[in-house]
Amino acid sequence: MKLKYIGERKLIKLISKITNTDISDDCAFLEFGGNYIVVTTDMINERTHIPKGSTPYQIGWHLVAINLSDLAAKGAKPLGVLTALGVPKEYDLNFVKGLTKGMEACARKFNTEIIGGDTKENDILTLCGTVIGLVKKKDVMLRKGMRTGDIVCVTGKLGRAGLALYSDNPSKVLVFEPRLKEGLALAGTSGITSCMDISDGLASSLYQLSELNRAGFEIHYNKIPVSKSGKDLKIPLEEFALYTGGDYELLATVKKPKLELAIRAVKRAGGRLTPIGVVTKHKDIVLVKEGRKTAVENRGYEHFK
Amino acid sequence: MKLKYIGERKLIKLISKITNTDISDDCAFLEFGGNYIVVTTDMINERTHIPKGSTPYQIGWHLVAINLSDLAAKGAKPLGVLTALGVPKEYDLNFVKGLTKGMEACARKFNTEIIGGDTKENDILTLCGTVIGLVKKKDVMLRKGMRTGDIVCVTGKLGRAGLALYSDNPSKVLVFEPRLKEGLALAGTSGITSCMDISDGLASSLYQLSELNRAGFEIHYNKIPVSKSGKDLKIPLEEFALYTGGDYELLATVKKPKLELAIRAVKRAGGRLTPIGVVTKHKDIVLVKEGRKTAVENRGYEHFK
Repeated sequence: MKLKYIGERKLIKLISKITNTDISDDCAFLEFGGNYIVVTTDMINERTHIPKGSTPYQIGWHLVAINLSDLAAKGAKPLGVLTALGVPKEYDLNFVKGLTKGMEACARKFNTEIIGGDTKENDILTLCGTVIGLVKKKDVMLRKGMRTGDIVCVTGKLGRAGLALYSDNPSKVLVFEPRLKEGLALAGTSGITSCMDISDGLASSLYQLSELNRAGFEIHYNKIPVSKSGKDLKIPLEEFALYTGGDYELLATVKKPKLELAIRAVKRAGGRLTPIGVVTKHKDIVLVKEGRKTAVENRGYEHFK
Repeated sequence: MKLKYIGERKLIKLISKITNTDISDDCAFLEFGGNYIVVTTDMINERTHIPKGSTPYQIGWHLVAINLSDLAAKGAKPLGVLTALGVPKEYDLNFVKGLTKGMEACARKFNTEIIGGDTKENDILTLCGTVIGLVKKKDVMLRKGMRTGDIVCVTGKLGRAGLALYSDNPSKVLVFEPRLKEGLALAGTSGITSCMDISDGLASSLYQLSELNRAGFEIHYNKIPVSKSGKDLKIPLEEFALYTGGDYELLATVKKPKLELAIRAVKRAGGRLTPIGVVTKHKDIVLVKEGRKTAVENRGYEHFK
């Protein structure tokens, strides 16, 4: 059967069965004394990930940022970044220089550095980043672990990616700030029962957490923090937040008694944490909007589809 | 200027200036108590790295093996492998299954495992592997450090890759055994002054080490260990050994008083180490053949060229 009839997430499950790999998280964990070495890798390419008109700098930033975002969701501190660059030989050197400056700027901004990589010729621009990080075992935030009654929270404001993608300048979507400070702040509260970054849209992330944890959610539409009033837009920003990938905020569940502590910790770190709902026993993902309950649709970005 | 006029090695130097990355080695090193965490990443694609007719299993094995080979040259022990797979959506699921089985088989054979990765749609099959390893600081083998008079050695037998590439079944080149046991054995001798894997041909590797160490070599043509007698072949295997990439044996320089110890250590590990020459003060790389001295040519495999 062709991959286009299978889809990314099912394919990953099939692969993980052969390799016997735990894929409950985006990151891999290696035990090291009282710590975990956390490693994550992400590959992007010209056609499926990069809007037309993007600058090399934006693409380079994005490559590092998406990997740092995965670390952020685990509460880990980055130790270094590796970048493997597959570039067509007809490309100009200035493209690679811009790309590298973007990678470097993002790594520096988040107190880490490019420690190595690979450079190869490819017919289509294909970039693969790997980030190595460190987190104390007791602080690590996994995707699995939520309990009924835990509070569902998100960092920052959502809808940023959708707003960019449907604007005149969609390449803006590439340059975002991975929530490393927020992740560290959350990890320090000992109150986080699950965490992931919202790369494929809030709805998709909620469905992934629901399946892993065999739990459901009740999400309050009006509590979803959005970057601007959606009044002037045809599509409300909350819709973008739910169904458009690329926001890269953190989605976390917090033990109720630790909620205020978590909000304060993220604020002290310069960020913001907003409660948007609650973990429920039943596996449904319910959206409460103007007093009415509807189902959150299971759609967002998925490869091979 | 287009990349095809620049070449891989010069491009990597330009990138490393922007990112301020030490590129004297293929691997990156993170200090961790008395150890180094060693990380390396390698990207391959369908068009430039994989002979026509290769099976998915062979490709998967190769992806893991090339990364393990980089670790082997540092004397490190692998802790885990990540594989990012960029696959066309028209490919069959059986292709990915075969690929994964090859990856898994290679990882297991060398006592490690696939701990994570990424799976994405791409127009051209592009695979990126990352390996994390561990080595005691005192044991690590770097590319830099050789002294005049050190003995140049190689593991195994060379010419395997050239023999395969010019045979009816060139895909055999993909399945090789990374010299992890040999690397660990060498690292334990405290007598190794530099080491790298021969991925682009012996000549190319010697030139890379020569530039890094500002030293030269005198290599004895007849001492180059080759896998079969070259009598029946139009091209002698020693020529393949020098100028064809893909052998992935280790090239090491050994302190003269430690040579016998190193040979015995590699033998105990089930391998073989052969002295083929000596490190010289002058930067020339000289080939001694039937009593006559000629220059080793600076050619082998290089991307973007």
